Amino acid sequence: MKNLIVGQSGGPTAVINGSLYGVVTEGLKSTEQIGKVYGMVHGIEGFLGGQYMDMDTDMTKDELTALKTTPGAFLGSCRYKLPEDLSDPVYPELFKKFEELNIGYFFYCGGNDSMDTVSKLSRYAASVNSDIRVMGVPKTIDNDLVLTDHTPGFGSAAKFVASSVREINRDSEAYDKPNVMIIEIMGRHAGWLAASSVLARCEKDPNPLLIYLPEVPFSEEKFIKQLKAAIDEHKHVTVCVSEGLKDAEGNFISEDSVETAVDQFGHKILNGCGSYLQSLVKKELGVKVRSVEFNVSQRCSSNCLSATDLEEAVMAGSFAVQQALKGETGYMIAFNRKDGDYGMECALVDVNDVCNREKTVPLEWITDDGSNLSQEFIDYAAPLVKGECQRPMKDGLPVFAIRNR
Amino acid sequence: MKNLIVGQSGGPTAVINGSLYGVVTEGLKSTEQIGKVYGMVHGIEGFLGGQYMDMDTDMTKDELTALKTTPGAFLGSCRYKLPEDLSDPVYPELFKKFEELNIGYFFYCGGNDSMDTVSKLSRYAASVNSDIRVMGVPKTIDNDLVLTDHTPGFGSAAKFVASSVREINRDSEAYDKPNVMIIEIMGRHAGWLAASSVLARCEKDPNPLLIYLPEVPFSEEKFIKQLKAAIDEHKHVTVCVSEGLKDAEGNFISEDSVETAVDQFGHKILNGCGSYLQSLVKKELGVKVRSVEFNVSQRCSSNCLSATDLEEAVMAGSFAVQQALKGETGYMIAFNRKDGDYGMECALVDVNDVCNREKTVPLEWITDDGSNLSQEFIDYAAPLVKGECQRPMKDGLPVFAIRNR
Repeated sequence: MKNLIVGQSGGPTAVINGSLYGVVTEGLKSTEQIGKVYGMVHGIEGFLGGQYMDMDTDMTKDELTALKTTPGAFLGSCRYKLPEDLSDPVYPELFKKFEELNIGYFFYCGGNDSMDTVSKLSRYAASVNSDIRVMGVPKTIDNDLVLTDHTPGFGSAAKFVASSVREINRDSEAYDKPNVMIIEIMGRHAGWLAASSVLARCEKDPNPLLIYLPEVPFSEEKFIKQLKAAIDEHKHVTVCVSEGLKDAEGNFISEDSVETAVDQFGHKILNGCGSYLQSLVKKELGVKVRSVEFNVSQRCSSNCLSATDLEEAVMAGSFAVQQALKGETGYMIAFNRKDGDYGMECALVDVNDVCNREKTVPLEWITDDGSNLSQEFIDYAAPLVKGECQRPMKDGLPVFAIRNR
Repeated sequence: MKNLIVGQSGGPTAVINGSLYGVVTEGLKSTEQIGKVYGMVHGIEGFLGGQYMDMDTDMTKDELTALKTTPGAFLGSCRYKLPEDLSDPVYPELFKKFEELNIGYFFYCGGNDSMDTVSKLSRYAASVNSDIRVMGVPKTIDNDLVLTDHTPGFGSAAKFVASSVREINRDSEAYDKPNVMIIEIMGRHAGWLAASSVLARCEKDPNPLLIYLPEVPFSEEKFIKQLKAAIDEHKHVTVCVSEGLKDAEGNFISEDSVETAVDQFGHKILNGCGSYLQSLVKKELGVKVRSVEFNVSQRCSSNCLSATDLEEAVMAGSFAVQQALKGETGYMIAFNRKDGDYGMECALVDVNDVCNREKTVPLEWITDDGSNLSQEFIDYAAPLVKGECQRPMKDGLPVFAIRNR
């Protein structure tokens, strides 16, 4: 009987541990086919350094329950890119370690870069006739993975965004004076999360009146014109923007305004398009303006867990185990939306078709003036934020599962 | 039979509408003593301009229920200071408007400045032998009002802070590398809210390891030393700071920063003290560091309502009405903590003794090294964040009461 190992990689989300919970509970349940259930600590990188834990004996039952609603990567994450060359010695090294633990099933939970890892490991396994089954479980608040209706993590982040924007709208209307609130939302290349701010609108409050995504080139002139019209009509205006707004030449709009740095993947670290636009509005319109950056809370708030999202995250994890037990390998779990009433079915997609690609918001879901979302987008996003989750609480604060050190 | 009017003033909180709910429901209930229940729109300033509403006929029953958990100032707020000189014509103008609406009871919900309004109006009423009863209902997330154990609004803001810091701690530990997370929390002169981040700690996670308040002069040298020691011991370090940190000379630390970036318009990018410290840490220690500013969400998040706080906010409102009906005037509602198990009793304090004063965190509750809180503070703050609130929800998002325009 073979053992199972699961790892987490890339930026954490509010429900990445929900998927971990799904893999672990399904693994522990499958006592006739699976021996031990291990967790890689800090992904492939930590595992290569000998870090792993036993998900049965190294955590209590209460911790396993709390795991489901704990944000961040319980197992620890990494940003480790496997070499393109499958003849690199890291591959046999890794598979030797798998062998030592008698691993038959490997699950990796992450976004684009993690699916790249799944792709390489499954191809390497095939090339050496290993029977280890390698599966990818998707997660990313950015919702930018292809071949799936959406990704676990997006729904809860979208719920945090819509709910927080709705709250800030209440705060912004306190005074009887025109004011502009600019809210900067994560999403460097895909505007899914900023777009979901549209759900904050309600019958008596049309804010956010303006929403700008990286999918459409941003024109400062047009923005100021649209903003002025919105202020004239509504006095209080909330503007939601993706952090990755770019001009017609494809440069991030805040690029030349402040010092920018580059991370180890060569990604530019952005320094605040919200605060850039705040300066612009102050200069051009002289109106009271403030900017807010939701920052990491949008990917780690468990206050705003979407029950739909969490349920699907758990389901993706357990479905991955079930499929691996059936012999499948080299796949990512995807969601297909059922027609009619909202409902999701899990499916398998070739991980090679997923990795290193990016799904952006369809242009036909963005209105012609580039500052609003269509009803199609609302119909798409609204079901994903539905339902509330109960978290274990103690003394008024959430109880989280934390790995032993 | 006289009518009642209630107004809101100053910066809104998550439970200022809870107090409004308390005043309104108690007023509507007192059918034998109170005729109509009015709300001033945009406080004294809006009322002088003729803005008010009927709290019974101008809102639905569902809206009244939703009001209790709606953040922001439902009635609209103002920042309007009445003249010191009680012979100013604005006073008879205001009282003439009270007379036109047959007002016998006036309630004003706010912080320091609003209590100044209550003080002046009650003194003016006495000077002209008016029988209008004037009462102050406290609110402020800053918790800086004197003569009361704490203020409504603080408990929910403290819960938001502690809960969000605990979530961010999970996010920050994802990678197996030293990193520093600096969280900037509201409080320009009083550090109550930043101090409450101490409640985020739990058995397996000692973060935030460092907490700095404006009550203690901030030394950059000492901070870097303390931070270096914390990183060496714990690898992942969360630092919580009040926005109002000052150096030994009493200057805000980010004020004269040479690091302050200038945007392309030549405007200084307003660095909060969090981003200032982020630059400092990067320069001095070269470690991975990020800063987060909770911004307005800490005063308007209804996701993190403390049931204790909301209950007390409602209680303060209804107690104010009860006392006014007994003939009291010129008081602010205060809370006295009962000995033993946590419990609050409402009391009356002379509003003249409250306004224009400020209560800061007692120095004996701050540890000698200036970077931590004592058990006394924890015992003080912990009960205030307890208990969860159910909000009316629709489609996964909170439903708020919004005034008709």
